[in-house]
Amino acid sequence: MGQSIAEELEPLFNPKSVAVIGATNNWSKWGYSTFTSVLDGFRGPVYPVNNKEGEILGYKAYARVTEIPGPVDLAVFVIPAASVAPVMDDCVTKGVKAAVIITAGFAETGEEGKKLQDEVLRIARKGGIRFIGPNCMGFWSASSELRAFMFPLPVKDGPLAFVSQGGNVGGAVVTSGYMRGIGFHHYVSCGCAADIQIEDYIEYFGEDPQVKVILAYVEGLADGIRFLEKVKKVTPKKPVIVLKPGKTDAAAKAITSHSGALAGSDEAYEAAFRSIGITRVESPEELLDVAIGFITQPLPRGRNIAILTPGGSYGVLCAEACASEGLNVVKLPDKVIAALDKVFPPRWSRGNPVDPAGDRNFVTFLTAPGKLLKVDEVDSLIFMGFGGFSIFAALFLSADAEHPDGVASWVPSRERFRELAIAFTKAVRSRDTKEIGKAIHPIVSGAASIMGIYNEEEVAELTQLVAAAIASGRLNAPVLVSAFLPPDSPLLAEMGIKNPPTPQEAIARFLVAIAEQWVEDYKKPVLTTTFFTEDQPRLRGSHYAYPSGKQAARVLVKLVEYKEYLESIGLYKN
Amino acid sequence: MGQSIAEELEPLFNPKSVAVIGATNNWSKWGYSTFTSVLDGFRGPVYPVNNKEGEILGYKAYARVTEIPGPVDLAVFVIPAASVAPVMDDCVTKGVKAAVIITAGFAETGEEGKKLQDEVLRIARKGGIRFIGPNCMGFWSASSELRAFMFPLPVKDGPLAFVSQGGNVGGAVVTSGYMRGIGFHHYVSCGCAADIQIEDYIEYFGEDPQVKVILAYVEGLADGIRFLEKVKKVTPKKPVIVLKPGKTDAAAKAITSHSGALAGSDEAYEAAFRSIGITRVESPEELLDVAIGFITQPLPRGRNIAILTPGGSYGVLCAEACASEGLNVVKLPDKVIAALDKVFPPRWSRGNPVDPAGDRNFVTFLTAPGKLLKVDEVDSLIFMGFGGFSIFAALFLSADAEHPDGVASWVPSRERFRELAIAFTKAVRSRDTKEIGKAIHPIVSGAASIMGIYNEEEVAELTQLVAAAIASGRLNAPVLVSAFLPPDSPLLAEMGIKNPPTPQEAIARFLVAIAEQWVEDYKKPVLTTTFFTEDQPRLRGSHYAYPSGKQAARVLVKLVEYKEYLESIGLYKN
Repeated sequence: MGQSIAEELEPLFNPKSVAVIGATNNWSKWGYSTFTSVLDGFRGPVYPVNNKEGEILGYKAYARVTEIPGPVDLAVFVIPAASVAPVMDDCVTKGVKAAVIITAGFAETGEEGKKLQDEVLRIARKGGIRFIGPNCMGFWSASSELRAFMFPLPVKDGPLAFVSQGGNVGGAVVTSGYMRGIGFHHYVSCGCAADIQIEDYIEYFGEDPQVKVILAYVEGLADGIRFLEKVKKVTPKKPVIVLKPGKTDAAAKAITSHSGALAGSDEAYEAAFRSIGITRVESPEELLDVAIGFITQPLPRGRNIAILTPGGSYGVLCAEACASEGLNVVKLPDKVIAALDKVFPPRWSRGNPVDPAGDRNFVTFLTAPGKLLKVDEVDSLIFMGFGGFSIFAALFLSADAEHPDGVASWVPSRERFRELAIAFTKAVRSRDTKEIGKAIHPIVSGAASIMGIYNEEEVAELTQLVAAAIASGRLNAPVLVSAFLPPDSPLLAEMGIKNPPTPQEAIARFLVAIAEQWVEDYKKPVLTTTFFTEDQPRLRGSHYAYPSGKQAARVLVKLVEYKEYLESIGLYKN
Repeated sequence: MGQSIAEELEPLFNPKSVAVIGATNNWSKWGYSTFTSVLDGFRGPVYPVNNKEGEILGYKAYARVTEIPGPVDLAVFVIPAASVAPVMDDCVTKGVKAAVIITAGFAETGEEGKKLQDEVLRIARKGGIRFIGPNCMGFWSASSELRAFMFPLPVKDGPLAFVSQGGNVGGAVVTSGYMRGIGFHHYVSCGCAADIQIEDYIEYFGEDPQVKVILAYVEGLADGIRFLEKVKKVTPKKPVIVLKPGKTDAAAKAITSHSGALAGSDEAYEAAFRSIGITRVESPEELLDVAIGFITQPLPRGRNIAILTPGGSYGVLCAEACASEGLNVVKLPDKVIAALDKVFPPRWSRGNPVDPAGDRNFVTFLTAPGKLLKVDEVDSLIFMGFGGFSIFAALFLSADAEHPDGVASWVPSRERFRELAIAFTKAVRSRDTKEIGKAIHPIVSGAASIMGIYNEEEVAELTQLVAAAIASGRLNAPVLVSAFLPPDSPLLAEMGIKNPPTPQEAIARFLVAIAEQWVEDYKKPVLTTTFFTEDQPRLRGSHYAYPSGKQAARVLVKLVEYKEYLESIGLYKN
């Protein structure tokens, strides 16, 4: 065809007008929810096509595509399988450029269906119409805000792109992503993939600079060699994460009746995927876990890991998970042990995992990662129960409840707090780390002192970390100042701070900024975990807390493997 | 000692009074949060003990235990390790009967700590004081509403009992249980287990009729043979689920520095656990998953499983998970295929997993499980995306938005609806399945017809299922009637229905009742799954939807294995 894949698929992903063939007023049919889905966002003309209904949800309906007055770039099919071929003929006549065939009942149902599918393909090829499907749930293109789905799915723009050979798995991943706060630039449910193949979508996503990480759910491939050739050119540019079932006979059988694909030999897939640097995962949730890892973390230099945990048993389970996944829970150098001996109580674990054994020292916890990350022996850090600091913080803030003017108990007076806050606000504007450090030192020091911490070295370390986070713009004045004041404090108004975050929000933002700062300062992955798997983490800034140490370990090992692949093809330099 | 374990531990789990040694007004110490935790629920006298503060949170403090005027059953220790032995001596003098030593710094820190621990044990033994810990987070006893924790944990009474050799893992499981809606009759963080051993707690839980399922997190055992002998007597009575890390060197090292235990050979543990019918799991969340499975499901007769899925790719992943876990995704008998051929569109999968391939027929979905469960070839069913029916239902209800009086569009008139509702309410009171069936048939039939379903056989099947759920008390009038009426409908008032559930609640309760009815009718497990792993299921009635097919498959295989164990010792009869 001579065109680049980006040119070829342009009318599909960025159509100027859409016809929905099978749109209807009958809410119990897919043609209804598909039509409402397209209407939800897309800003170009949308034409319902229905040969029985004259008007659909207030839009004039056309009996045939050929009767639509304006040009039609994209046709969405939601009509019975038997009618698809003749209507595709109409689309060729009309000059439609691309299509998505949601309709099922083609290759996946057996030989008759395969014939029907081949006929549709023949007609589309004749007219140069590229199409998604059949037997799919549709697609999303952020660049045109187009939701050509069977039903409205919650999805927003973001750095991921995803092609799924299963509509349910695809919809679940997209929705889960939405709930986790991460979006997709494109999502395609490819169904039987009669025309555009999975590797074509991956090639297209590979060339799109908006896309940072590519995800795929694959049941079987029409042409495995073509897939490997195409994807091999993408993995050096960006990670390609694939979920591919089919290890068991039961799954292989289910695959054939679902997508009409052949599952193939799992060993062959495993070896082939590995040889071209594909990141293989084992569940829909892991697709997202790993994608978020690639988005938020640098690639680790090696397999050595340190674990920091608020409790021993968490550390045990995380160490087990890391070692099982092939990471090295590294023996900490003596100098690190010595540094931690100085700040943790004598009962601390004195090894890796680093467990302060019930120490309630918030400041020490926040300076420990620096001590671990700065040595060459540590490539990555898992910081467990990270979000739980908000519990300490809440306790810390509640300790001031007795002070009716809301100023924290370590602040000598409102006047002094005003002075500090003004100096601080001025320093923030300077963007100079040293200036900022000077301004915030009394605040950090005072906050530490009410927790009984007077170790000047530690306070200096935390001051530096916070100053760096402020200088880089991660933390700003309202977040820090308001953490120590009630929302209705007159001081906030005096300082011109409107809509301050709640203390809980302020603490959450503070922690995210600190986590991001570790990553920036040491160029090493810092994965954090929540306290419970029932916690529902959301991506905040460029930070995400995994719900378990096991998930964090599995993500880290995928990052290491991708780095090792890049290294093997000469694209990673330490 | 001659006493039964229940008698021995009675003063521990059901004390009449509690002393908190180390209670303090200083909120930054564990002695503060431990004291507030004990105060939160326990109704007997609570005495703070502190030799520097005269009054703590309004309670008179005593400098020594011996100065407390009334008797003290239980002493909670939150003081430095070095002070525990002399204060234990005081407790012996005072006649204290039981203790929990939260304080860390004993056997887990090395030889010196071990000596200190032995000394405490010697003193306690002398005075007949049984104790939990040291180096633990405390415990919960629902029978006395006692939270003797380091800090208040959310926990409620329920059918589980749990002993954990890790405070963080224990706290996470208890809190996750709370979030999932399931409670614990007892929870013990056993720490170094110097006195009472893990197997003692399991024996105690085994004898408590309130406890249905026992959970344990084990890092290492002081006396493996004693553990096996004790637990072997419990597993025939109720399931014992154990999480035991230590497969890797990294975990074994972490265990020693955490609980002072020796991890031991994982192969030896695996074989020993299997030989006495212990159910072994691999993560904290699986502890709860499997416990909930035992609570909500009968034991499956065998490994044959049927899968019903709203989408093919979900079915593929679930079939893979089932087969990988050793379940048999059974070939469905011809008669079942024939029965489903009659009700599903021709494109359905015609095999197992059963996938209606995008059929929107709510009624058929709800009658399919009966067709699968009634044949001998199927031992269990996984019904995927079950909760998702509420999406259909919401659509169904929203279809009536045009009817300003709120009566569903299939109801000929308000007068007719009143007649139906009155007949229905009367029939419900009769508790007669046939009578109820007659009364609800027009409702089921009408609801089906607006979805375009006129298959009388199916409507009859669903009617029967719903009538059985009503007769057994699972469904009642307000739930069903209010689903079709807006909350402020005058009809509800006329019928004397106050505080009707919202339509969404009504649908949720309807689905739970139907799921419970399948289990009762066929005495086979029916595990349902939600649409996304991000969904947060809660136990409702005796129903719980797992967040993925993989989790459901793993639970089912544990149920099968326990049944096989009972069978092997002659305690299970088909």
